[in-house]
Amino acid sequence: MTILDGKKTAADIKEEIALEVAELKSRENIVPHLAAIIVGHDGASITYVNAKVKACERVGFESSLIRLPENTTEKELLNEIEILNIDNDIDGFIVQLPLPEHINEQKIIMAIDPDKDVDGFHPTNVGKMALNLPTFISATPFGILELLDRYKVETSGKHVVVIGRSHIVGSPMSILLSQKRKVGNATVTITHSRTKNLKEITLQADIIIAALGIPEFLKADMVKDNVTVIDVGITRVADSNKKSGYRLLGDVAFDEVSKKAAFITPVPGGVGPMTIAMLLKNTLLACHRNN
Amino acid sequence: MTILDGKKTAADIKEEIALEVAELKSRENIVPHLAAIIVGHDGASITYVNAKVKACERVGFESSLIRLPENTTEKELLNEIEILNIDNDIDGFIVQLPLPEHINEQKIIMAIDPDKDVDGFHPTNVGKMALNLPTFISATPFGILELLDRYKVETSGKHVVVIGRSHIVGSPMSILLSQKRKVGNATVTITHSRTKNLKEITLQADIIIAALGIPEFLKADMVKDNVTVIDVGITRVADSNKKSGYRLLGDVAFDEVSKKAAFITPVPGGVGPMTIAMLLKNTLLACHRNN
Repeated sequence: MTILDGKKTAADIKEEIALEVAELKSRENIVPHLAAIIVGHDGASITYVNAKVKACERVGFESSLIRLPENTTEKELLNEIEILNIDNDIDGFIVQLPLPEHINEQKIIMAIDPDKDVDGFHPTNVGKMALNLPTFISATPFGILELLDRYKVETSGKHVVVIGRSHIVGSPMSILLSQKRKVGNATVTITHSRTKNLKEITLQADIIIAALGIPEFLKADMVKDNVTVIDVGITRVADSNKKSGYRLLGDVAFDEVSKKAAFITPVPGGVGPMTIAMLLKNTLLACHRNN
Repeated sequence: MTILDGKKTAADIKEEIALEVAELKSRENIVPHLAAIIVGHDGASITYVNAKVKACERVGFESSLIRLPENTTEKELLNEIEILNIDNDIDGFIVQLPLPEHINEQKIIMAIDPDKDVDGFHPTNVGKMALNLPTFISATPFGILELLDRYKVETSGKHVVVIGRSHIVGSPMSILLSQKRKVGNATVTITHSRTKNLKEITLQADIIIAALGIPEFLKADMVKDNVTVIDVGITRVADSNKKSGYRLLGDVAFDEVSKKAAFITPVPGGVGPMTIAMLLKNTLLACHRNN
């Protein structure tokens, strides 16, 4: 059994990016620049956006963090987006989600210039992804493709079962893995809450992407031997034995499933750490396109 | 066994549209207007685009057919598109594909205003479809959803197997049928040329969408009893017994598969006739959005 080590892989990717940025800077005096907008004071969002800014610094990117108060109006936020859209110094930017309830998230995503949408959430970029055209693939699916690629997990002709149909993970994963691409060419089954005979289906899977958000949902009796398991779930569960008062659980019962698996991602340390690395990769891509 | 009669269903839809158009005209003096651009003199394309124009007339739409010579440059075609993009009198328009080889098809599709792209081929519309946002769903997938709907074929919780991963049929069908929508909520498996155990998979299917383009590929021994079969294939096969010298074959061996099926589309007269009806439906939708 091989652990798909997202933490190490993400560190490798960041190191590669840092080398490329150093070269870009010395050779052409170009520095990729990522901006992030955050509205309000949600603790988890602030932690996450700060981690992104810090990651930028570590690889040598410029970064700009735009913090707006909780009561920012939709119109004010749209104005900030327009400023970033036309600022030639910014290669890409993100608007940290979720947004306060009085702001229409879809409207905000639609306002971002697709060529700067390094989160890959704009419909134009989702459409390009679905059409297998060059685009920004959003961080979580992109990170999963990268993990499978770096660990040389064969996907061509394999049966992938995706559990969960969210727009940010399940749906794009099912699209991407069925396409003609290096990590792709798989037979893909997408399953969800309406699926009746899930166990029957997961037992056929060579690769399972668990992205439904129910802790330890996937048990050993639902998988066949030598399965590859990608666990996208991450749920906080109260745990009085931990200093923090909680522990993180994935959608996979790791202890039992890992005994049958050929490859498996841990939680934490699997898919999670990959996302920031892939955001940086998208920003570098945006920078290359602009220069 | 029930035949999913595309010809009759398309006629019903056109009649409904004609009634709505008559009412729209008398009540608000609004007439939907579809334009079509055709480049060159490909026989099949001309026949098809003429059928679209004729269908417009029959339901009371205005239509404009713009015929450009084979040697039209990409720039000239882009200019024509820009004229239609800004023409407030045009609700929607299409550029008949395929285009001559010296023109970049993707560039042309990208130039169409997504709000007038009633073919639903622009990445922004494909992305909106994938995100389950209001959009123009392209004619063939839209027609299949409509057929399943009108014949009350249950899809929720059913296992749909899609054969073929084209951007115009297989891929969008697999996305749409897995979504939370009236005709949707299915467990969907997308299969293609790299799929190893296809028969094993099709034998599990409650619904099969055959869209691979190989005549009579799907045989009776590949399906279970009471399957629903949607045949998207349409291939001309030489036949000296026919006046035309050919006959049309679908991807399904109809005679044998129909004996086991609960519902099945014929070829011709199944999915094919639905496409023009759905193009009209999209144009009517565009007209409603504009008024």
